[in-house]
Amino acid sequence: MAEGLAPLESLIRSIARLPGLGPRSARRIALHLLAGPSDRLDTLIAQLDRARGAIRPCTVCGNLSASDPCHICSDTKRDPKRLCVVEHVSDLWAMERARVFDGCYHVLGGVLSAMDGTGPDDLNLAGLFVRAQNGVLDEIILATNLTVEGQTTAGYIARHLAAQNLRLTRLAHGVPAGGELDFMDAGTLGAAMQSRTDLDYHAE
Amino acid sequence: MAEGLAPLESLIRSIARLPGLGPRSARRIALHLLAGPSDRLDTLIAQLDRARGAIRPCTVCGNLSASDPCHICSDTKRDPKRLCVVEHVSDLWAMERARVFDGCYHVLGGVLSAMDGTGPDDLNLAGLFVRAQNGVLDEIILATNLTVEGQTTAGYIARHLAAQNLRLTRLAHGVPAGGELDFMDAGTLGAAMQSRTDLDYHAE
Repeated sequence: MAEGLAPLESLIRSIARLPGLGPRSARRIALHLLAGPSDRLDTLIAQLDRARGAIRPCTVCGNLSASDPCHICSDTKRDPKRLCVVEHVSDLWAMERARVFDGCYHVLGGVLSAMDGTGPDDLNLAGLFVRAQNGVLDEIILATNLTVEGQTTAGYIARHLAAQNLRLTRLAHGVPAGGELDFMDAGTLGAAMQSRTDLDYHAE
Repeated sequence: MAEGLAPLESLIRSIARLPGLGPRSARRIALHLLAGPSDRLDTLIAQLDRARGAIRPCTVCGNLSASDPCHICSDTKRDPKRLCVVEHVSDLWAMERARVFDGCYHVLGGVLSAMDGTGPDDLNLAGLFVRAQNGVLDEIILATNLTVEGQTTAGYIARHLAAQNLRLTRLAHGVPAGGELDFMDAGTLGAAMQSRTDLDYHAE
């Protein structure tokens, strides 16, 4: 590329910074948008603009939604006694897609990380501690990832909430559905062995 | 996701249709844009909008550029006697990045494909045939891909230009730099064997 292409180059650089993309895929996407039918680009710009205006973080849980409180926090059919604490909105979406939890959520917006310089004040922890004292909650499920940072963050929260009369749980860790032992790392196998359950063969 | 998230869902669907992306990566990108600092999304929208206004196909060669004729067609330092015919703008960019050609280009905008229903009228062929008669050109390099459609398209163009007093060439096909024979397909090895060159070991 050469002089006169500055608008294209800056666009490609921005696209390349999106998660999962690099210079090569960014070029393909920019070409797809600019060389294709013009309504393709028009639609994407309009949708980005509409989402920018309509989608906001929920002030209660941190989920992204068109309403505040979000559609989950304001859903009266959901159990307000159980709260699932996740790192990111994407984790909340993953739980919702799996349809395995009908309580409410709290999105931290990250994890404690000395490497990245993320401290307690950088996470949505104050809101969580306020919610923990509201007298409605029975149980808080610490569903942070099974990484050093995720477990550190869960430990930090657990210590802060130890004095509260709350059940603190975490997701079970083990071999995923369809997982072959041969491909599992030692940490997963260790967790699976430690949390092994009794096989109730009479019930089968 | 649920009701009230329509702006987000339509955005994710659009992102998922971009080349190389799917539902999962589209969700990650949408979250990255909407959950991150708001200037990130503002910048991307502004850049898309700016590119939409500024970048147009060159009416001479089909390249995307902020000027028309594009910066390559209007570059007097480039050799106007040699024309490299490529399928897509991305191929032109690949040639330019490699800095192996200092002539001009012609972008077809695709290939002849019975499967996809792409006929001669769907490609930028009329412009090519006009350029071939302008009396300036010495050589046309048919740099379509080494696929059935690419070679069919090159053959179609070659038949149409056979009567012209022009040198028609195509890129050499063979083992790529760093290529290991063990990983090459039979077509590549066949082309490499057929186009084998004499080893001038006195010159080394």
